[in-house]
Amino acid sequence: MNDEVFPAVAADAAERLAVHWRALAAAELPVVPSGPPGTTLKALPEEPPERGEDLAEILDDTWRTIVPQLVHWQHPGFLGWFPTSNSPASVLAELVTAGLGVQGMMWSSSPAATELEQRVCDWLARALALPQRFAHSCGQGGGVIQDSASSAVLVAVAAALHRASRGRWREHGTEGRHRVYCTGQTNSCVPKSVRIAGAGEAVRVPLLPGTHAMDPAALAARMDADRSAGRIPAAVVATVGTTATCAADPVPEIGTVCRERGVWLHVDAAYAGSAALCPEFREVNAGLEHADSYAVNAHKWMRTGTPCSVLWVADRTALTDAMGLTASYLDNPAGEPRTVVDFKDWQVPLGRPMRALKLWYVMRAHGLEGLRETIRHDVRLAALLAGLIEEEPGFEVVAHRLGLVVFRRDGDARTRELAERLTGDPGVLCTPATVDGRPVLRAALGSPYTDEAAVRRIWSTIRRTAAAQD
Amino acid sequence: MNDEVFPAVAADAAERLAVHWRALAAAELPVVPSGPPGTTLKALPEEPPERGEDLAEILDDTWRTIVPQLVHWQHPGFLGWFPTSNSPASVLAELVTAGLGVQGMMWSSSPAATELEQRVCDWLARALALPQRFAHSCGQGGGVIQDSASSAVLVAVAAALHRASRGRWREHGTEGRHRVYCTGQTNSCVPKSVRIAGAGEAVRVPLLPGTHAMDPAALAARMDADRSAGRIPAAVVATVGTTATCAADPVPEIGTVCRERGVWLHVDAAYAGSAALCPEFREVNAGLEHADSYAVNAHKWMRTGTPCSVLWVADRTALTDAMGLTASYLDNPAGEPRTVVDFKDWQVPLGRPMRALKLWYVMRAHGLEGLRETIRHDVRLAALLAGLIEEEPGFEVVAHRLGLVVFRRDGDARTRELAERLTGDPGVLCTPATVDGRPVLRAALGSPYTDEAAVRRIWSTIRRTAAAQD
Repeated sequence: MNDEVFPAVAADAAERLAVHWRALAAAELPVVPSGPPGTTLKALPEEPPERGEDLAEILDDTWRTIVPQLVHWQHPGFLGWFPTSNSPASVLAELVTAGLGVQGMMWSSSPAATELEQRVCDWLARALALPQRFAHSCGQGGGVIQDSASSAVLVAVAAALHRASRGRWREHGTEGRHRVYCTGQTNSCVPKSVRIAGAGEAVRVPLLPGTHAMDPAALAARMDADRSAGRIPAAVVATVGTTATCAADPVPEIGTVCRERGVWLHVDAAYAGSAALCPEFREVNAGLEHADSYAVNAHKWMRTGTPCSVLWVADRTALTDAMGLTASYLDNPAGEPRTVVDFKDWQVPLGRPMRALKLWYVMRAHGLEGLRETIRHDVRLAALLAGLIEEEPGFEVVAHRLGLVVFRRDGDARTRELAERLTGDPGVLCTPATVDGRPVLRAALGSPYTDEAAVRRIWSTIRRTAAAQD
Repeated sequence: MNDEVFPAVAADAAERLAVHWRALAAAELPVVPSGPPGTTLKALPEEPPERGEDLAEILDDTWRTIVPQLVHWQHPGFLGWFPTSNSPASVLAELVTAGLGVQGMMWSSSPAATELEQRVCDWLARALALPQRFAHSCGQGGGVIQDSASSAVLVAVAAALHRASRGRWREHGTEGRHRVYCTGQTNSCVPKSVRIAGAGEAVRVPLLPGTHAMDPAALAARMDADRSAGRIPAAVVATVGTTATCAADPVPEIGTVCRERGVWLHVDAAYAGSAALCPEFREVNAGLEHADSYAVNAHKWMRTGTPCSVLWVADRTALTDAMGLTASYLDNPAGEPRTVVDFKDWQVPLGRPMRALKLWYVMRAHGLEGLRETIRHDVRLAALLAGLIEEEPGFEVVAHRLGLVVFRRDGDARTRELAERLTGDPGVLCTPATVDGRPVLRAALGSPYTDEAAVRRIWSTIRRTAAAQD
């Protein structure tokens, strides 16, 4: 029955979404909901329904019960965390992906799902001007879509542990000897992934004085001291575009330190990596020729809905040796060449949806031109906001890079109070954070509907809120 | 621009999907494509497009280039691996989820996304008659949607390692001392997840003689020997519904062994767990009162598209202590009660889409009645197929439980040859496997379009193919 009503109800849903996007674009909805914890729980029955209901009724209820209690990440006033991007092309692809309902764990479980992912990852590697060896077409490396930058780090660290232990890790685990390095500015999902991989607490390497970037000499010293103490440096996670201030670790120097010591270098460019679509921002790729793996979240700044985190490795066998599994029910069919890619061996999960369709739709619908224009647009808006803040007495820009502006008021108590007063504002969402021990506010541009007028509106809200404090 | 054309092109996509489903239902499409490796790669340009294209053109190209090279998991002749289920309700929800484009890592990053997930997991726990303590509403435990049963095992093992090491694991990793136990019949994703968690090779516990189920006495002996040798038994992964034969480890006895030793018990019921929707199959839940965590894939047998793997834990703090992370940019807003759930601390990734909407749509659209009827329908079809095989001279049913039928011909060479000849058949896909060292074929019912006529057609294809061998 549902098969028959589906086209009409899906068309209705698409129309509602279009209306919703127009309402967001016009800032007619609040960016954050006002209901206290439990609002949605209370609105939902405690018992699951015994009998089926019409899809149209469920759709209605979505807009009645769910939508009013969402934070609208696509709202022009949404400047929180880093953006989770979106576009009609991506949404259309999600519809088609779900409708086709295939599973791409192995080449043989849906050949086009695998080959499309290989090609789209190669496209993106080329668009970002990544080193050739990250391409599937070069035969050694290749890209794969993960569900998050966290998972990308996790599989990279697993491959590094496998390599550093010469395979002993598969049988014996980490044995408490392996070390993974990052900094205190690294996104917290990185030490978490290192911990989940059984490597314990990631070593925090000191920063270059006066920066938020890793000190390569301190890294080398720390690794050498660890090795002298009988420990095994296995991997370094360098960040290009930290969450707090969009700082970049010096990948060229870190790469040299890693290469000299045979240590795996993973570069996490979850947010900032997308900027390399534009030649003028391609410095974010500096040093990648030394990296063993590299990840960027297309769902952050490439108009592709979450999740779509692309991980590239220079040597795919290091990854598949670590992550591979065998079982008689997963044997490839007789006669199938061993050259096909089975993405189950490139990730944690066994199963996987057709992950590449949405990135294919987005790259084709926007073209590289369109994606570059998105980046440039957001960078321009960030510069506008940073300029407005700098002109304002009593305000200070703490960091400003690409689409991120980090700022504070004169006085930590005032900054903290401003952050609190802004919480729940219907027109703007900034994320509070701490930089060098002092409170700041982060504003990350990236909503598809944020324009110059929206930035001026946001700034006037912040200014008015600050004035009301004083 | 794309915003404006979206409703029309999405309606077109929905109509194409409906046509596609009708073609599948009528078995007008081959279940497996005939193109050799590289067919899709060759059809896709090597260079990414510089300029944007129309969504309508990309949609056309999807049906021209991608669809013909997919394995159709929703085809009535698809009996491979375990099903990846689907339904119009799930597809509609994926469209809405993508269109709303929110991120549910924390309660405050989209309250309704979190609370809907809490409620839907509680609904499902009740529908499956799981122990009360797995419910969010009980305050100690709760459910969370993971991307796969593999990830569910990974986070359960991480929590177990944390508990077994009294928190030392967070800092020092596994130190090569912790052990996780399963059997040789456990899905290969389980030892893989154990390995990724840094616990090395999972210990394979012997089977009860003449079965494919774990021997609880052998488990106890193995754990005690390991403990005497200075190792730390951390977790047992019991399976209800193994991939090869749908066997069930004796959870009640294993639970007693684990409880006596303070060892974490995770029950992986990825496939068979859904059967508990029906009172007559509720035996699959036996012993769950001893389990620390339990997972079932709603995307296998509950009409919900992949990924939708639901994990419940009895003690949420064991999980969040292990998986939690802190960072100033992830602080909860001032005044937010600590009772809200932040699902980032229940999973590997930091970010996450609104995962629960599709399970909500499916449970409401089908009702528990409808979901039970799906299970019963597939169990009836499996019985029909098993009966047809048993009546046939020279064929033997090796295992038959719920929706899975495992069979072979008389003679391993003949079985192997039958599997090879069936590979690439346009009307049927069975997965070859090995049981007790001998080749078999697996037939797992679960496509929404498989009916009695389809089963008879499939069987006549298998019979005809076998006859052609002789």
